[in-house]
Amino acid sequence: MSILVLGTTALDTVTTPSGRRREMLGGSAVHFAMSASHFTRVDLVAVVGRDFPRRHIDFLRKKGVNVTALTIEDGSTFRWEGAYRGDLNTALTLSTQLGVLSTFRPRIAERQRSIENIFLANVDPDIQRHLLDRMRSPRLVGLDSMNFWIDHKRRSLVRLLKDVDIFVANDAEARSLSGETHLIKAARGLRRMGAPMVVIKKGEHGVFVSFKDCFFCLPAYPVEKIVDPTGAGDTFAGGFMGYLATARKMNDAAIKKAISYGTIMASFNVEGFGVERTARLTKKDIVRRLERFRDIVSF
Amino acid sequence: MSILVLGTTALDTVTTPSGRRREMLGGSAVHFAMSASHFTRVDLVAVVGRDFPRRHIDFLRKKGVNVTALTIEDGSTFRWEGAYRGDLNTALTLSTQLGVLSTFRPRIAERQRSIENIFLANVDPDIQRHLLDRMRSPRLVGLDSMNFWIDHKRRSLVRLLKDVDIFVANDAEARSLSGETHLIKAARGLRRMGAPMVVIKKGEHGVFVSFKDCFFCLPAYPVEKIVDPTGAGDTFAGGFMGYLATARKMNDAAIKKAISYGTIMASFNVEGFGVERTARLTKKDIVRRLERFRDIVSF
Repeated sequence: MSILVLGTTALDTVTTPSGRRREMLGGSAVHFAMSASHFTRVDLVAVVGRDFPRRHIDFLRKKGVNVTALTIEDGSTFRWEGAYRGDLNTALTLSTQLGVLSTFRPRIAERQRSIENIFLANVDPDIQRHLLDRMRSPRLVGLDSMNFWIDHKRRSLVRLLKDVDIFVANDAEARSLSGETHLIKAARGLRRMGAPMVVIKKGEHGVFVSFKDCFFCLPAYPVEKIVDPTGAGDTFAGGFMGYLATARKMNDAAIKKAISYGTIMASFNVEGFGVERTARLTKKDIVRRLERFRDIVSF
Repeated sequence: MSILVLGTTALDTVTTPSGRRREMLGGSAVHFAMSASHFTRVDLVAVVGRDFPRRHIDFLRKKGVNVTALTIEDGSTFRWEGAYRGDLNTALTLSTQLGVLSTFRPRIAERQRSIENIFLANVDPDIQRHLLDRMRSPRLVGLDSMNFWIDHKRRSLVRLLKDVDIFVANDAEARSLSGETHLIKAARGLRRMGAPMVVIKKGEHGVFVSFKDCFFCLPAYPVEKIVDPTGAGDTFAGGFMGYLATARKMNDAAIKKAISYGTIMASFNVEGFGVERTARLTKKDIVRRLERFRDIVSF
């Protein structure tokens, strides 16, 4: 029932219309873990440098995230600096310093090789492949990526698509990898490339899922004040995969419930900088917002 | 229970990736009427020129639309020519010939003045005002407009907002008229300007409604092949207002049902050129798609 997430652990510097934060705890694996840990036990696989603040590791541990596979290497932690303008839909990357990420090879404990639910959050597809090959009995494998890898490591990524159950992409990534403009066709194209289920995240316009003969969609939960959208996609994936990891059956009802949880979790994420908002989230907050969401979209 | 719609009746020439149609039956009042007539009796108020093909009038009549207030004037019918490229989200207007629309003053029968449900579809706000002032006992008044009037007749439009129950706008219009980028704030701004309920249409991204303390949203119904989006907004309004005209109470349940019907009707509209698809729609088609839609968005 637990889930293992491979991805980045970063120090993010972000500027949005709401302000600026320097060197916050961030990264794809962290945002995913902060969200998924509300549903199941999470093992985080990532790398940081010797400069990584001890308090962030303590914080993750306190949140119930297993950090034994968060390796600390000589060198500096992966840093990302970005800014959002206007409608906050697109991040403008100001700088990326890979640091220890450039030579990262995931190291996991023997016990962790048996974890059956796996999420390969955004990181070099060759690292994703390396980790996946070490896993003993994958039951449910999710994959995320980004345009940089679609452009620079397309073959590795396309090969990975054949070995995962769920591919999660935003609209631009789905279009770019499939070569289709129309998103429904893009999802179908990605499924033909190998992933049985495709989840397309459209930011403020919600999400849709294409799986077998089924199609599900939901709008985003209406958030009045978006403070910082960084990590919203990973937070969505955390709720989505975290819920699915606990579901007995992968039927329509479970998938729809997973989409709604992902949506709710992402809506909390954007209400604060970094993991500020998700860090103080209670089960009650989640349940209450899910009920409100159901009320908003049901007819 | 019947509804009176004021708007344009046009001859549309449209080019989309699916092909080209010359001088089709179109216009805001026609698309609205074709949709609303599935829910209630519709009286159409518009003007055409002597060149307007008789068969279009016969067609509307056959579809159950009351055309006694469709006046025929000396001169030529309003013509619009447009093209859609790529993702079909935005129409490129190639030409507009107002013809008899430039001197249009709606003329309605004494009996029609007592119709309680009114939709002021997109046309000059001064013409909308002229018609509204003639109505004896409005119960439910909806208003639509376009960026041209927001830019050129802003004062007339803003005055109208205070005298209607529902303002329907697309995202660009809502932003432009309210001066707010964030759509939820834009909707609230428009409500402060006078309309108790604001409906914001986001095309392929669905729709949301802001009313009292409530907020409702739905994604668009997933249409695989969009043939021609012309009139989708008016078709949405026709389903939305058509359903509300028959609802006993304006409560949350009725509003949500109205949004879902509007969404479904718009999804049919885009599947064919002009009114091709809505013209051969049956009650059974509508009910079946509504059920399918409920299945897609419920969790």
